[in-house]
Amino acid sequence: MQTIRKVVVIGAGNVATQLSFALEYAGLQIIQVYSRTSSSAEKLGNDLYTDFTTDIKKINSSADLYILALSDDANRQFANDLSLGDKLVVHTSGSLELEDLKGCSSNYGVFYPLQTFSKTRKIEFKDIPVCIEANSPDNLKALYELASKVSNNVREVTSDQRHQIHLAAVFACNFPNYMFTIAQKVMQPSGIDFEILKPLIRETAEKIQKVSPLEAQTGPARRKDTAIMERHIHLLNKFPEYKHLYQLISEEIGNQYE
Amino acid sequence: MQTIRKVVVIGAGNVATQLSFALEYAGLQIIQVYSRTSSSAEKLGNDLYTDFTTDIKKINSSADLYILALSDDANRQFANDLSLGDKLVVHTSGSLELEDLKGCSSNYGVFYPLQTFSKTRKIEFKDIPVCIEANSPDNLKALYELASKVSNNVREVTSDQRHQIHLAAVFACNFPNYMFTIAQKVMQPSGIDFEILKPLIRETAEKIQKVSPLEAQTGPARRKDTAIMERHIHLLNKFPEYKHLYQLISEEIGNQYE
Repeated sequence: MQTIRKVVVIGAGNVATQLSFALEYAGLQIIQVYSRTSSSAEKLGNDLYTDFTTDIKKINSSADLYILALSDDANRQFANDLSLGDKLVVHTSGSLELEDLKGCSSNYGVFYPLQTFSKTRKIEFKDIPVCIEANSPDNLKALYELASKVSNNVREVTSDQRHQIHLAAVFACNFPNYMFTIAQKVMQPSGIDFEILKPLIRETAEKIQKVSPLEAQTGPARRKDTAIMERHIHLLNKFPEYKHLYQLISEEIGNQYE
Repeated sequence: MQTIRKVVVIGAGNVATQLSFALEYAGLQIIQVYSRTSSSAEKLGNDLYTDFTTDIKKINSSADLYILALSDDANRQFANDLSLGDKLVVHTSGSLELEDLKGCSSNYGVFYPLQTFSKTRKIEFKDIPVCIEANSPDNLKALYELASKVSNNVREVTSDQRHQIHLAAVFACNFPNYMFTIAQKVMQPSGIDFEILKPLIRETAEKIQKVSPLEAQTGPARRKDTAIMERHIHLLNKFPEYKHLYQLISEEIGNQYE
């Protein structure tokens, strides 16, 4: 098994940015950044004091690992266009197949950090679960060693498990965030700033760290307080697009505590 | 205006418990706790080293403030049964009317802490927004003074604003928590523990402290990645009750970024 030291990062979006910094911090060397968008390539390359390119033909061939951190479609396309011989290549996606990489190398795997990333917001990578998969025990070992340098929470998973985790992550992150968007909108007529909800949002997530979501549930739907729910539905007359959602979720919560 | 020093707390649930401790800590004196359930009355009374009762007729008449922290229905009932003359009385509800208290006293108001409470989980009350209302400027002033002792975030609101905030809180807290329940359930077939999602849940809430939910949104629905969404819907065959919700929310998220 080869220890990974030099890395080429394909992509300059949220995941690529945060992962690059975490790898650098862990002592790895990002020898090149690729992005289709030259300003993005330049920005991340400069931030990392490293080489960058927008030309797939100029991708540095001397790295130990190539990380595809583009969108799923772009990753798939890139894996088709790229030929890396026996160089280890991984993607960072929750949903792309492991086998989607077999066209570009004989050694491949998955390095899926389970987190919601933004370019600007620095996060503590050590706490992020990293799910790994590979096409051989040796590659898995190399990825395990690498992942352990940036995270205290490395898991070997199967593709099926990864897909299931990704689906759960949509419910754990993307959908709650959309609920926050609705909360902000329905507050608007009151003239009160969204700010007032932030401690509540924080505590909702903190509570879950200690208590199961089934126990943590509060609110009129759990208490089957129909008077309050009717008033809320009335208030949602101004927001017909959220009325159905309010009713549907309230009903499902109610059913859960029959 | 009279400064509030002695308090009777009606209720021994999550809100009553957390609020009692915050008031005690702020130097107020809880002179009595009432609960219909004798074990709850005794528990909270003992924890506060104070008197407790389960008999509405034995409620101490020498307090400066009576806090109704029961369920909405029980609060309403209690306000009818209780006669406090001109003693200041408040409820802690996001949805009950201010006027629901006028039967039990000539001085009344609302003291609504915007948070999700559990009995056991201690929380930092200082950060919790407290929304206050009262039936007179003097009572409002007394409540403002009191609220400022336990929170750095006191707001005078109207009843309409409070109802709107309460509706928003359902979307900001109760519904996201339900999404966590679904996340836990859809993970089960994978054999992987819910634990793995906790850093993601925490970061989803932390992100919102700095970034608007509209910007913070990530995931396949925002990217309109139909291939992933179709796979997720396929995975949800095992959970038909969540399939419709997945489709509905994904569609609404997609529409938002047209």
